[in-house]
Order: sequence, then structure tokens, then C-alpha cells
Amino acid sequence: MYSFFKYQELKDFCEKIFSCYGFGEEDSRTITDVLLRADLWGIESHGMQRMIRYHNEITSGMVSVAAVPEIVHETPVSAVIDANKSIGQTAGVRAMRVAIEKAKKSGVGMVSVRNSNHYGIAGYYADMAVQEDLIGISMTNSEAIAVPVFGRHAMLGTNPIAVGFPADPVNFMYDASTAVVTRGKVEVFNKLEKPLPDGWAVDAKGHVTHDASEVLHNIINRLGGGIAPLGGTSELYGGHKGYGFAILVDIFAAILSSGMTSNYVATKPGENNIAHYFAAIDYGIFGDKASIKAHLSQFLRELRESPKCEGQQRIYTHGEKERESTREKLERGIPVVDKTEAEVRKMAEHHNVPFTLTGERS
Amino acid sequence: MYSFFKYQELKDFCEKIFSCYGFGEEDSRTITDVLLRADLWGIESHGMQRMIRYHNEITSGMVSVAAVPEIVHETPVSAVIDANKSIGQTAGVRAMRVAIEKAKKSGVGMVSVRNSNHYGIAGYYADMAVQEDLIGISMTNSEAIAVPVFGRHAMLGTNPIAVGFPADPVNFMYDASTAVVTRGKVEVFNKLEKPLPDGWAVDAKGHVTHDASEVLHNIINRLGGGIAPLGGTSELYGGHKGYGFAILVDIFAAILSSGMTSNYVATKPGENNIAHYFAAIDYGIFGDKASIKAHLSQFLRELRESPKCEGQQRIYTHGEKERESTREKLERGIPVVDKTEAEVRKMAEHHNVPFTLTGERS
Repeated sequence: MYSFFKYQELKDFCEKIFSCYGFGEEDSRTITDVLLRADLWGIESHGMQRMIRYHNEITSGMVSVAAVPEIVHETPVSAVIDANKSIGQTAGVRAMRVAIEKAKKSGVGMVSVRNSNHYGIAGYYADMAVQEDLIGISMTNSEAIAVPVFGRHAMLGTNPIAVGFPADPVNFMYDASTAVVTRGKVEVFNKLEKPLPDGWAVDAKGHVTHDASEVLHNIINRLGGGIAPLGGTSELYGGHKGYGFAILVDIFAAILSSGMTSNYVATKPGENNIAHYFAAIDYGIFGDKASIKAHLSQFLRELRESPKCEGQQRIYTHGEKERESTREKLERGIPVVDKTEAEVRKMAEHHNVPFTLTGERS
Repeated sequence: MYSFFKYQELKDFCEKIFSCYGFGEEDSRTITDVLLRADLWGIESHGMQRMIRYHNEITSGMVSVAAVPEIVHETPVSAVIDANKSIGQTAGVRAMRVAIEKAKKSGVGMVSVRNSNHYGIAGYYADMAVQEDLIGISMTNSEAIAVPVFGRHAMLGTNPIAVGFPADPVNFMYDASTAVVTRGKVEVFNKLEKPLPDGWAVDAKGHVTHDASEVLHNIINRLGGGIAPLGGTSELYGGHKGYGFAILVDIFAAILSSGMTSNYVATKPGENNIAHYFAAIDYGIFGDKASIKAHLSQFLRELRESPKCEGQQRIYTHGEKERESTREKLERGIPVVDKTEAEVRKMAEHHNVPFTLTGERS
């Protein structure tokens, strides 16, 4: 089913492939770093598995390799960047660097980005700020696959929100979509031919469905229906809350940048028009950084050490799973499923790059 | 069961009552305005129904009538306020005014508040910024009644988040707790002797329970169990997301202000130690305000006008229900249930204030 590849081997390979598309050395490194971070963190849907998608978007012209994201509006605490169709990772890293610079000078930096492409995992950018001992925030809209409460038409992306804050012994790193699940999870149920849990998705008429294959078919062909917001399809479990958070992502990413909201993403030929939002906050503007960080570390420890539900051994705080996954993957290798490996081999052939990776079969 | 009282009559009455406790004219107006806004918006749990709670907290000394909230740390974009045990409404209004001033000068203002009390509905403060044509954000922690995913001990408050943004014809106003439901909803099920929906709450061992009375008993006596986070008790429906949002509220309110996190709220005799967070952002730092506002107005309209689930007539955007409720209550009067009316009559007696309200019996 899959093989384990050493992180360093995959890194060298991906960087070479991206440079073959025409990306410069630094950009190739950035794109690869964001991509493999997803695999390291255990978010396989956004890692190697996505290589083929980037191939398709680059060769079809959705992604412009030559594009340089540019600042089109700026104040000491804010900026708007037009990504000019650049790949999302380079736009994202550029934008978060601007936010970080502003946070270091003014205490806070907020950057809204329009006309971009998929940027990988939201948490990568929040973590950039955390590595500089700042609070990091990152959001992105995406192609509409989630329905509003009482709706039957996908109007919102899975619109993830990531927020990171430095803490010991593990940083707080919240990174989650505002839909009840991501499309990737529905795809897994489809592959396993398992019925979807109640309330994950609705059919073309807006009613709850358990048929993963139908949901995916309807989404791809824009026939109606889609994934439910966090909290479900009605107000009973707070579906209006997830629906509201998804709107908030579009507000900060697409409205503030004068970009395209989720319902317009990927609707124009040759353009994804994805929008992102980044913020960095120097928490030293609220007091002594060492005490604040120690206070958060204590609170997170108290949560983890609080009494467990009968039958459960552990309470997690956000960021722990990612750190443990990273340690494991760096040691054992990154699992790449055969289908993905085949796609990547084709990309290598396309560029006449020899596929020299020596995976360990599982 | 209840009577309708004219808004103006209730307003005059509540202001008089609060001044009897020793609050100045402006403070009495502020507290009353926040309180009745909840009733106007249709959030009865935070309106007149709460009068008795304020009475108890003032007379027991949890709330210090004489307290003046003071700025203890400040930069051009941030402040930390020690509420000094003041009532939450005056601390909240003071803090949001500081955030608004900073946003007007620096583009953004973020204010974290410690050592406060219940501040009513989060949305009130976000709306203050919206009335100044700014983005408004407001959060508060509260007494721990929500359990972490895989936990069985209430460690987090219902920790609401409110975000408002000016739009036509109705402002966007998101205001919701990060728990699956509020305590008030569990109390309603208890009164009606109805079983709780699956996944709203867990018992003292951490397992899902449908027994509202048991849940409330356990919460009040700190015997374990509590309300589930938004997304439920496991990761299947994204319970880790609601749990994460609740932590974020504590980070911005309690950690940044060096205050008390939810799990310490109301655990010391005579102190609530509630923490809040407020932010205002001048969205003009991202471009032309008129275009940005028009863009959001269009997006919200597109959501409302998108195809409805079969059997549903309407898709709401956040803030519509509050506006419609306000119109209705100003016309028809504010419903006050008999139990609340009896409590309020006692408060009037306590101060030798004649109860002259002429309610219309329903």
C-alpha cells in the first residue's frame, strides 16, 4: 500500500522537481518545506499527496511560476498583497514575513492576500511567527464545498483557521478547518465504502446524507449539497457557529484584501483566486513575555493533567500531536501511498529527473 | 407565565435600581444598556433574568461598586486593564473605548482585562466598534462548565467570541459561545424535563449523558462532567475545534492580561476573577472603506440568497435575528417571566423603590 521515504531524500527530490518547473532555489525550498511539513505533522492530505495537484495547476497556468507577490496597500500595522497568481506557499511566506516585521516594529502586523493559490497547511505560517516568539494567525479561503445552515448549495470553503502561541514544553498550535470535516476525510470514507457519520454532509436537496460517493460527485460537478459546517447542518449542535467562523475567514482573507470570496474561488477559467490572511502579534505589548509564556504553559499543562474520561488515557492540547508525529516521521520516514508514488514518478519522468528514492516497503 | 414591559419603563426602572446600589448615573446607564440589549436581541438568558445575579454579586461583595478599572500596561496598539473587581459592564465599556481610540489613531487597538465580573453579552462590545465603523472583537472567559475532549472535569467556560463588521442592510454580528450550548439551554431542558440531545454534555465519568438535572447538579457542586465543546465530546464531529477555540478565548482574555483562566474563575471566596478581551480594527487600513463594506454586504446577500435546503424558507447571516428581535421587542415590549418579575420586585423592595411597571400580561 505504501513505502516510507527518508525526509531528506524527499526534500531533495521535491526541491529538484519544483526547480524544474522554473521556480528559483529559494522558492523551491519554501514550497517543499510547506509541503513536507504537512506530512511531518501527520496531515497527509496536504503533503506529498498534493504534488500532482501542484503539477496540474502549474502546467495549466492556474499557478504562475514567474509571478512576484506585491504589496499594493500598506500601513505600519497592515498590508494588502496581490499574489498575482503566484503559488500559495511563496505568497504566504512573503506575507507572513511582512506581518512579522510589522509586529516587531509596531506590536502587530496584519496582512491580507488576494489572487493566490493553495498555500498548504494554515499552521505552517502561524508557526513562522511562533518561531519568532510571536503569536501567529493564518487563515485561507478555498473552493466552496461547505453549505450554510439551512442551505443546499456549497458557498464556503473548508476555510481553516490556525493560531499559534509559544509555550513550554510544546507550543500551542491550533489548526483546523471551520467545516465539520475536510474533503479529505469524506474521500477516505468513500475509498473504504463506509457510510458517512450522521451530519457530516448534505445531498443536493440539502438533507443529511451518508453517501460519500454522492457527496463528492455533487461537489465536483457543482450539483448542490456539500459538507456541513463545524457544529452540523442545523442550530441544534451549533452549526451556525461553524458557518459564522467560515464567514469570518472570508472576511479577513477575501473581503479585507478586495479578493474573491469562497463562492468565487476556482470559478473563472485558469484562476484559483484564493485569499489568505496572516497576523503576527508581539505578546510583549501586553506585559512581560517570560511570565505570559509561563502562564500559558501552566494552563495547557493543567488541561492535559485534568481528570480523563473513563476509558481515555490522555487529554491533548493543540500542537502535541503534530510534534509527536514529526519526531516519528523524521525517525521512521514519511509514508507515501503507492498511488502518490506513481504520480510523483510521472512528474519526475515529465522533467527527465531520475527517480532515485529508496523507499522502505511497508 | 410572563408579562411584556415597555423598553423605556424597564430602562428607567433598572437605572434607578443600579443607582440605589451606589453606581453613578453613567455607570447605571451603561449596565442597564448592556442588560436590556440582551433582551432586545432575544438572548433572554443574559437580560432581565440576570438582575438577581447582579444583586447577589453586588451585595456579597464579588462586585465592587466603587471600583475604577485602571490601565496597568499600555502601548499605542494595546492595553491591559485591571478591572479591580468592578462590574463587568463598566470594565467592558471602558476597555472597548480604549480599543476604539487606539484603532482610530493606530489602525488597531487590543485590550485585555483581568479581575472583572460577568459582562453580559459579548456582542454588545463588538457592536460598540461597529457603531464607529470599525471591526469589533469581544471575548470573555467564565466559570468552568465545559470539559476538554477526552476529559471529565469542567476546565473551560462557555467562553463566547463576538466579531462584528459593518454591512448593509444589516451589520455582520457573530456572537456565540465556544461550547456546543450554553448552560441556559441545559436549564431549559431541565425545566421541561426533556432528555438532552446526544453529545451536549457528559456525566461525572466523562460519558455522554441525557440527564439535564444531573449535569446541572454536577456542575454546581463541582462533581465532574459538564457541557461538551462545540463539535461534541470526541474528534468525530470536531470537538477538538470547539475545545481549541475555548482555549483561544482564555489566551486572549486571561493569559494576555495576566488574569485568571476559566478553571480558576469563581474559585476564590468573594472573587469572580473573570477576564475579557476586546479589539477594534479600522478596516480602512486595508483599503477604501466604502468598497470593502459594499463587498461584504454583497457576500452576505449572496449567502442569504443562495438555494435553501428543501423545507427551509430562509438562510440567515449573523446579526439578522438580533435586529429583527430588537424591532419586535421595541414594539411589543420585552417579555419578563413571572419568576424574574418576582425577583426584581424583591430588589425594588430592598431599596424601597416602588415597583411601578405596568406589564401587559400574556
